[in-house]
Amino acid sequence: MNETILSAFSIPELDVDAGVRVKSYVDSLTVPHGSLGRLEELIIELAEITGSSFPEVSRPGVIVFAADHGVTAEGVSAYPKEVTEQMVRNFLNDGAAINVLSRSIDAYFNIVDIGIDSDITLEGLTVKKVRRGTGNFAKENAMTRTEVIEALEIGYEQGLKMIERGAKCLILGEMGIGNTSASSAIISVVSGEPIDTLVGSGTGLTKERVIHKRNIIEKAILDRKPDPNDPIDLLSKVGGLEIAGMAGAMLAAASDRTPILVDGFISTTAAVVAKLISPRVVDYMFVGHESIEPGHKKAIELIGKQPLINMRMGVGEGTGAAVAFPILKSATLLLKEMATFESAGVSSKTKT
Amino acid sequence: MNETILSAFSIPELDVDAGVRVKSYVDSLTVPHGSLGRLEELIIELAEITGSSFPEVSRPGVIVFAADHGVTAEGVSAYPKEVTEQMVRNFLNDGAAINVLSRSIDAYFNIVDIGIDSDITLEGLTVKKVRRGTGNFAKENAMTRTEVIEALEIGYEQGLKMIERGAKCLILGEMGIGNTSASSAIISVVSGEPIDTLVGSGTGLTKERVIHKRNIIEKAILDRKPDPNDPIDLLSKVGGLEIAGMAGAMLAAASDRTPILVDGFISTTAAVVAKLISPRVVDYMFVGHESIEPGHKKAIELIGKQPLINMRMGVGEGTGAAVAFPILKSATLLLKEMATFESAGVSSKTKT
Repeated sequence: MNETILSAFSIPELDVDAGVRVKSYVDSLTVPHGSLGRLEELIIELAEITGSSFPEVSRPGVIVFAADHGVTAEGVSAYPKEVTEQMVRNFLNDGAAINVLSRSIDAYFNIVDIGIDSDITLEGLTVKKVRRGTGNFAKENAMTRTEVIEALEIGYEQGLKMIERGAKCLILGEMGIGNTSASSAIISVVSGEPIDTLVGSGTGLTKERVIHKRNIIEKAILDRKPDPNDPIDLLSKVGGLEIAGMAGAMLAAASDRTPILVDGFISTTAAVVAKLISPRVVDYMFVGHESIEPGHKKAIELIGKQPLINMRMGVGEGTGAAVAFPILKSATLLLKEMATFESAGVSSKTKT
Repeated sequence: MNETILSAFSIPELDVDAGVRVKSYVDSLTVPHGSLGRLEELIIELAEITGSSFPEVSRPGVIVFAADHGVTAEGVSAYPKEVTEQMVRNFLNDGAAINVLSRSIDAYFNIVDIGIDSDITLEGLTVKKVRRGTGNFAKENAMTRTEVIEALEIGYEQGLKMIERGAKCLILGEMGIGNTSASSAIISVVSGEPIDTLVGSGTGLTKERVIHKRNIIEKAILDRKPDPNDPIDLLSKVGGLEIAGMAGAMLAAASDRTPILVDGFISTTAAVVAKLISPRVVDYMFVGHESIEPGHKKAIELIGKQPLINMRMGVGEGTGAAVAFPILKSATLLLKEMATFESAGVSSKTKT
């Protein structure tokens, strides 16, 4: 295993001409000039991403990467580590929030075990386990550089597979008890923000345990000294396998000119890592929602985006992105299906 | 015609017990406690509105009320008055933004001519014309009290018809060149805010014409002296037929415990009027979006709501509500289709 993944793909530039074409066509649609507001901006961005005059985002593809985190041994999570596996079973039984939302947006759906700490093999689960959970980064590196590369490659392959299956927009979600700790560490190192402003109660910690969680992460950063300019170092020291997987899938989508709908804190952390690997990847991203996680705002800032909605959600799994997806779809439908002033025989403006 | 519409209906109280039941059930679903954020609040509000433990909003019903405004003679609009009729033809030909969005949310759809200033009779158009456009409120009252009552009654009937047809949530939209002027006048009178802070460029006026529009409305308010405590007086002096129609439909929905998804500035102005008629109607409302119209924020404040999204849209027609609708629907689907911790065999929290 080598680090060729980092140079094996190339992300094309945005198709600015397609954006200009679409902008001009939007002006002919039977709504007041500019009145589609952000929907118009989304349509133009989608045109630049896809190169198409009538970009599509449907059907979308949801990939949930699941993995465990050694740092859960330090008591940083409200739920026991076993919940990762239990929730994956729930995903496979169609009972989780992301199942319901994926159905409602007619998404292709895949769950990838990229590092669950058990030997589950269930029908419908894509098993691509790099290792059984990461190392406890309070005491050792989360994984080796080789494992990071492997996880990125798996994500990349799974991203491409989902696109080959027909997905026109990728939603990247995750399941991994402990992964807000890894994400907070990464965002703190990359942004330079103190950990206190980034770490909240996660899935429901008490105040005392929030403080404990902050201390654990702070000390781990001091001990491991992750290099903010080396995404592989960052992931190997304080990262997570599902974070690497999501980042790989994002790189695949961008390479293929497929729009990416980023979800919450963990998903946006993967986007930050993907940007460190190849800055242009962010041109292909939308952020579905702003979550309740305090570190999310900073992570969104690092990729320079505006979330579509804010429902104060904190579920993960890709759920916030799935709730926001119909907005992107609405934008594409308006472009494709509306009449123009000319075709509808509607008068344009009086002299103003 | 008398004013019995004002007492002919009664709006039931919210079903607080249903809300409590649903809240407790949400806590058993396989997401971290409280992590559905605003979606959880929406579910509980929908339970209180409908009285159901599994409230539904689908299929929704979109009613677009169309009417003309005499005040367009003063040059307050960027588009000529004829555009009202032309856009109604566009609606009937499925070419407008609201057509596209109604299809995408699988909505029942109806257009009501409640006062277009022409004799169009087209297949699919519900003709309930009270009069051919309002009077020019710069010079005379917009309509008589009797006409206001008639328009409210038409709206009420159309609301009930849409519910009988099967709609589980009403979206009220409008088409009426000049109706931001009427809405600004109403919101200024009710809120006491100066007209300057409420009137913007509408569908695209130059600065000079914005100032002209403000002056016309300001003078009309001084001349007509609408009574902020008498919604019928308010509508008859500076209102619009489509605004009355929407208010009537909102009262119908609330009487029937059907949730209302309010759209932009004009739709929210109708909500403000409906609240003046029967304050409890607001308990049945959600505001779909915050629009780019400067007066919208104030109108939303008057009914005490938080919009679901902000896409900086300024289309009207019900479009912002239609773009936001999938969020409400997602909330109901999560409640209905998710597994519980017990049914899915997922561990609950460790001691925190």
